[in-house]
Amino acid sequence: MDSPLPKNSTTQTIAELRAWLGDRLSTAPAVREQHGKDQTWNPGAPPDAVAFVHSTEEVQRIVSTCAQHGTPVIPYGTGTSLEGHFSAPFGGISIDLSQMNHILEVNTADLDCRVEAGVTRKQLNAHLRDQGLFFPVDPGADASLGGMTATRASGTNAVRYGTMRENVLNVTAVMANGEIIRTGTRAKKSSAGYDLTRLLVGSEGTLGVITEVALKLYGIPEAIVSAVCPFPSVEACCKATITAIQMGIPVARIELVDAEHVKAFNAYSNLDLKVTPTLFLEFHGTEASAHEQAETFAAIAEDLGGGPYSIATREEDRQKLWQARHDAFWATKALMPGKESFATDVCVPISRLADCVTQTQADLAANNLYGPIVGHVGDGNFHVVLYCDRSDAEEYKRVKEVYGRMIDRAIAMGGTCTGEHGIGAGKRSYLQKEHGPALAFMQEIKRALDPKNIMNPGKNAAL
Amino acid sequence: MDSPLPKNSTTQTIAELRAWLGDRLSTAPAVREQHGKDQTWNPGAPPDAVAFVHSTEEVQRIVSTCAQHGTPVIPYGTGTSLEGHFSAPFGGISIDLSQMNHILEVNTADLDCRVEAGVTRKQLNAHLRDQGLFFPVDPGADASLGGMTATRASGTNAVRYGTMRENVLNVTAVMANGEIIRTGTRAKKSSAGYDLTRLLVGSEGTLGVITEVALKLYGIPEAIVSAVCPFPSVEACCKATITAIQMGIPVARIELVDAEHVKAFNAYSNLDLKVTPTLFLEFHGTEASAHEQAETFAAIAEDLGGGPYSIATREEDRQKLWQARHDAFWATKALMPGKESFATDVCVPISRLADCVTQTQADLAANNLYGPIVGHVGDGNFHVVLYCDRSDAEEYKRVKEVYGRMIDRAIAMGGTCTGEHGIGAGKRSYLQKEHGPALAFMQEIKRALDPKNIMNPGKNAAL
Repeated sequence: MDSPLPKNSTTQTIAELRAWLGDRLSTAPAVREQHGKDQTWNPGAPPDAVAFVHSTEEVQRIVSTCAQHGTPVIPYGTGTSLEGHFSAPFGGISIDLSQMNHILEVNTADLDCRVEAGVTRKQLNAHLRDQGLFFPVDPGADASLGGMTATRASGTNAVRYGTMRENVLNVTAVMANGEIIRTGTRAKKSSAGYDLTRLLVGSEGTLGVITEVALKLYGIPEAIVSAVCPFPSVEACCKATITAIQMGIPVARIELVDAEHVKAFNAYSNLDLKVTPTLFLEFHGTEASAHEQAETFAAIAEDLGGGPYSIATREEDRQKLWQARHDAFWATKALMPGKESFATDVCVPISRLADCVTQTQADLAANNLYGPIVGHVGDGNFHVVLYCDRSDAEEYKRVKEVYGRMIDRAIAMGGTCTGEHGIGAGKRSYLQKEHGPALAFMQEIKRALDPKNIMNPGKNAAL
Repeated sequence: MDSPLPKNSTTQTIAELRAWLGDRLSTAPAVREQHGKDQTWNPGAPPDAVAFVHSTEEVQRIVSTCAQHGTPVIPYGTGTSLEGHFSAPFGGISIDLSQMNHILEVNTADLDCRVEAGVTRKQLNAHLRDQGLFFPVDPGADASLGGMTATRASGTNAVRYGTMRENVLNVTAVMANGEIIRTGTRAKKSSAGYDLTRLLVGSEGTLGVITEVALKLYGIPEAIVSAVCPFPSVEACCKATITAIQMGIPVARIELVDAEHVKAFNAYSNLDLKVTPTLFLEFHGTEASAHEQAETFAAIAEDLGGGPYSIATREEDRQKLWQARHDAFWATKALMPGKESFATDVCVPISRLADCVTQTQADLAANNLYGPIVGHVGDGNFHVVLYCDRSDAEEYKRVKEVYGRMIDRAIAMGGTCTGEHGIGAGKRSYLQKEHGPALAFMQEIKRALDPKNIMNPGKNAAL
């Protein structure tokens, strides 16, 4: 694609940065390649150089130099993005924040903390465990908290604890003009001014480079009860979920795994589970309330023909019970040797979830494609893992078309083209479809805050 | 103050609007006065005319006309703002949305609804009751949901259910150029593009006129348990609150009323309550879990010297138990005949709340001022009701100074100048103090989305 940027600025930028970053600025092809290509269907493109930073002030200095020369700036965390967020289609400087990995403060009384952007969620949780606290947002990968903030990540327990949108108190960011801002205070709520925190959460590096994040924390629950329940159909799974949420059961996790996944798991682990859509659940609370939740759900499931219902309390048993959910991806992968897998992501109102899933399954079958499904059903969010041989152009085309229809279907049902993976480079064409005239205002904001369009160009609402 | 707007545009605007609005455009002095002056210390200023609108398209037509002539546009809901949000310091057209009061849809399975901006929270809850649902955000006044959205309102049960920030799914708004946008879908979560919903929530009419709001709903809990517990000190109240939240008790309401309030209530209702800081609580859940929460809190309170602990389950008994909290304002008002009362609002990290409250009490005492305190202590948010004779210039000055120090104290403690009332016309000078360099980016956004500065000029981050 044509670059919207002035050319030939990068050589000068690299020379200036190397002068003070030394060997923390790399132009080695392997490093650039690793910082430009993710594990998804996005083709990716390497940046011209990668800067390994240690502080907000270093990021500021880099962004200022890039601003001067019109060089693109692409933030990089752990490289676990699923929508090509960190590829560099117009070249530029990748800012690798992984060495900014200090936990700056933990305020036990306030249930909050402040971390550098490169701290990963597992690192934070390991640090918090002894204090009886945890950070709930769990996108699967051990992503950096800066990256999770920038992509508005969520995952399995958003149904109870919310997404990054609800769990970021404020961020420190370097804006396109090199200014450092903090977007809010440590107060749990505020009506003071525009919500810049939420504007930066999910902006995918296109408005500023997030260098520090203040997060809400939670006490580790006294009791965690896990449960697994097979159901006769996807519809029954969804109905059980809707009923549970309407009744106010504060379920912590409620995950759908489809029959294809169960079949794969039986083969992978030599088991004999009922091959049918299955819900994996987790309940948090006091001993009494977690068990009460689990029992109330059992009654709901029974009414809908679900069961047998398995339940576990001890950590070891819980792990075993949830094993199929944890292994879902590898179990299906083992059935498809030589094929690549592509992650997909849509989210719909929960009343439309069963329709959206079953219509997508029918489309997969009609196109002779293998696409097992997992869903964070409490939020109406699901993923098809699309398997495909990319060198088979015809198959690849079918896969892309099925995914296109899945997204169109989700939007038509009042949902979104991405529940948690983000827009990145991969879903830009859907922004207009989903937002209509609102997109123009996103672009106005982008132009106002980054008039030279140096912040992660080609992603999200950025040109 | 000097107007940042082109002058003398309004006559033409009014003529054009009257041609199609007829008697739904009023220039009557009483109507203008009512739409320009609230019950707070903001001096207020009447708009040049008030338009009573019936649809988003009518708002669009008005904004387009105003945009053409550079006439200010000021949205008006129920007039319950506490920071002069709807005064018209530069004149212009007040858009009264109170007749846009239709509940457009309620999606029971999805626990969401869509309402016109003029629907009030009590109206919505009356409509929902038969369906076993409710909308939790409760700022006290029977405010319009559009106004609550625009000011990022919250109130007593935000500690459990969140504020308008967490409970608005999307909004329909008319932007400064007359464009109508919807800021999101009905999906519970999304990573698609910039979060325009959260940008408009709390923007106080300075970025667009909110005409419809989609909201999250909740099932009415099976059981509600209320409790009241006196404590030896504000510190003990705050410690009990912190402990309860750290232990994960999902308390629905936890309200501090200070000794001054209890004293006033005894006088007002001829009672004999212990004159000491007191917590009013409410627990939502199943029968078992709501009682378990209440009992766990009782143990916490006892450890901190609190008690006797009163508890009630039946609605009538709950009302009686909470009577002092409900009557707090009128009870203190009765002690101060002839004095005006002024609402204040700050929010701090909960670990600093006791310090912030007690230092503020000391400052009040040192200045010989009467200022009873109520606090949504689960969020670190509190209000001093400042009594004062405005015609006594010296007293009024002392009141303003005490409030200024209270805000400075909150900001210095890592808090915010407003937890829930907003910036409006009254707190603009604190935006810079709280946000520092971040304010400039709010102003950039304002300039980009409303280059003529017609949307509620003189409020929030608007010039």
